[in-house]
Amino acid sequence: MTIKTVGVKIENPEIKYQVIIGQANFSIFTTDNLFMTMLTTVPGIKCAVAMNEAVPKLTRVTANDPELEKLAAKNALAIGASHLFVIMMEKAFPLNVLPHVKNHPAVCTIFVASANEMEVIIAETDLGRAVIGVVDGTAVDKIETTEQKMERRELTEKIGYKIS
Amino acid sequence: MTIKTVGVKIENPEIKYQVIIGQANFSIFTTDNLFMTMLTTVPGIKCAVAMNEAVPKLTRVTANDPELEKLAAKNALAIGASHLFVIMMEKAFPLNVLPHVKNHPAVCTIFVASANEMEVIIAETDLGRAVIGVVDGTAVDKIETTEQKMERRELTEKIGYKIS
Amino acid sequence: MTIKTVGVKIENPEIKYQVIIGQANFSIFTTDNLFMTMLTTVPGIKCAVAMNEAVPKLTRVTANDPELEKLAAKNALAIGASHLFVIMMEKAFPLNVLPHVKNHPAVCTIFVASANEMEVIIAETDLGRAVIGVVDGTAVDKIETTEQKMERRELTEKIGYKIS
Amino acid sequence: MTIKTVGVKIENPEIKYQVIIGQANFSIFTTDNLFMTMLTTVPGIKCAVAMNEAVPKLTRVTANDPELEKLAAKNALAIGASHLFVIMMEKAFPLNVLPHVKNHPAVCTIFVASANEMEVIIAETDLGRAVIGVVDGTAVDKIETTEQKMERRELTEKIGYKIS
Repeated sequence: MTIKTVGVKIENPEIKYQVIIGQANFSIFTTDNLFMTMLTTVPGIKCAVAMNEAVPKLTRVTANDPELEKLAAKNALAIGASHLFVIMMEKAFPLNVLPHVKNHPAVCTIFVASANEMEVIIAETDLGRAVIGVVDGTAVDKIETTEQKMERRELTEKIGYKIS
Repeated sequence: MTIKTVGVKIENPEIKYQVIIGQANFSIFTTDNLFMTMLTTVPGIKCAVAMNEAVPKLTRVTANDPELEKLAAKNALAIGASHLFVIMMEKAFPLNVLPHVKNHPAVCTIFVASANEMEVIIAETDLGRAVIGVVDGTAVDKIETTEQKMERRELTEKIGYKIS
Repeated sequence: MTIKTVGVKIENPEIKYQVIIGQANFSIFTTDNLFMTMLTTVPGIKCAVAMNEAVPKLTRVTANDPELEKLAAKNALAIGASHLFVIMMEKAFPLNVLPHVKNHPAVCTIFVASANEMEVIIAETDLGRAVIGVVDGTAVDKIETTEQKMERRELTEKIGYKIS
Repeated sequence: MTIKTVGVKIENPEIKYQVIIGQANFSIFTTDNLFMTMLTTVPGIKCAVAMNEAVPKLTRVTANDPELEKLAAKNALAIGASHLFVIMMEKAFPLNVLPHVKNHPAVCTIFVASANEMEVIIAETDLGRAVIGVVDGTAVDKIETTEQKMERRELTEKIGYKIS
């Protein structure tokens, strides 16, 4: 079996949307049903769920916002792997929705969830494509100092996610 | 896109600590909060949570034991991939803590959890690094016999995890 | 043992806040930590977590809104049962937060979650009080007709929680 | 506040259906959505979800079998408590579906799940009704012997739920 490694850059203008990429199954059901799960997470959420299906070879998409719909579908299609889903959203953070997505009965795993610049690493065979990893922003090059640790705690408190 | 494959050996002296490696997001919140989640799992647990952040390029770390803190941070830095976390612990087994880690709202996936010798497989692009797999100890070379099956059930019972 | 049945009306002006009542443990930890869990559910959520502790006999409370803080504490105190918690919130629905509350490691059970008029049914002994049930609005008196079934589906779709 | 205690017998002909009784919220959404959750649990499941709503005072019901639909609605109406749901099913056991029901975002708690004869204990006030407990079959009158312990383990193995 010949295996080629391919990289796909996620399109996310001004890196302004949150992106979740995962593996599931039963696309004709899950595209709509996972979208409905998203709707129960945060009031007023804007989101799109795009999901690939092997037979027929289609990217399915359900959304309540036209730009997110276009982007999620385009990114899922560029990745190409069957049963792969791409969620793009705003007015919500991964923290708010991940427990619901992980618990969805058709979801296998989540590769990544963030608003960093992203590159999807893919293994390609004659049969099709498999996501094997995602570069989720730049690599680190040092360990935080005690001062930087204090700064992150102050910042976490300032944005309301920590009580002093 | 140029993709290079890199391997990183996890440092774990005498293979005495349990190690969990996964992908999450929101590092300034999650480093402390996932550490707090660990504290609720097992009385007297000793552990460290180290997590990488793309901007600024830093490994964050929170711990209640200085050696675990140093090791978790060193291993996370060596892996380098953004939003990657390394938990190192003693006085608890993965069995005790995995349900809590998987349910944490910022956690996407767990790549590995064990006390075997470990090597992390990484895809490196110009943007950064993606974990694509983890070697979790030596590979197998045969199937268990009926006798070995009985031995494992006896051992499981002896260590208190099975009732006859 | 003498057991007396007592009813406590939940104070909720104009029935405008969502209320969750449950049983947990480790109040000195859980009051703050469950509040932090609430913060991860919905961006901009306003909420208060009040929780009773047997020794010393205190209602603990953490909030990011003064009116919710006052109401949650007052209701938890009126119920009186130890390890009982009352969450009061706005800008979020039970649907958004219940998975997180149920998964919290100190939470035992949820008695009720709604914005109906509520009466808490309590069993009182010499030792203390136990919640035994909650009246969550008026009782029903008929089964929906096919027309009413269609109306609820149209309404669910209209408010964005169903796709046709 | 006047509190009256009332008992309601669950109708279940020949005790042939599995019954789950619980508390949730958002009836117009949850009746259908919890039914859909049931459909994802076991291939070929037959089930009905009936749920009470305080305003208007209605029992909602969704099903894929007419007898289960009639029974679930009749039992939910007889209990009367608002936001109370009754699931009746066949071709599946509680074991198969409870994790999904407990994880449903609108579900607070499950009072009972079994195929025993059942009586629901209710506290009734001027406002409405609260379920305070469920009698799930006859009460016990002795502790198992060592022989009976072995018999149950053999039976568990015989029906395929234990490996020797």
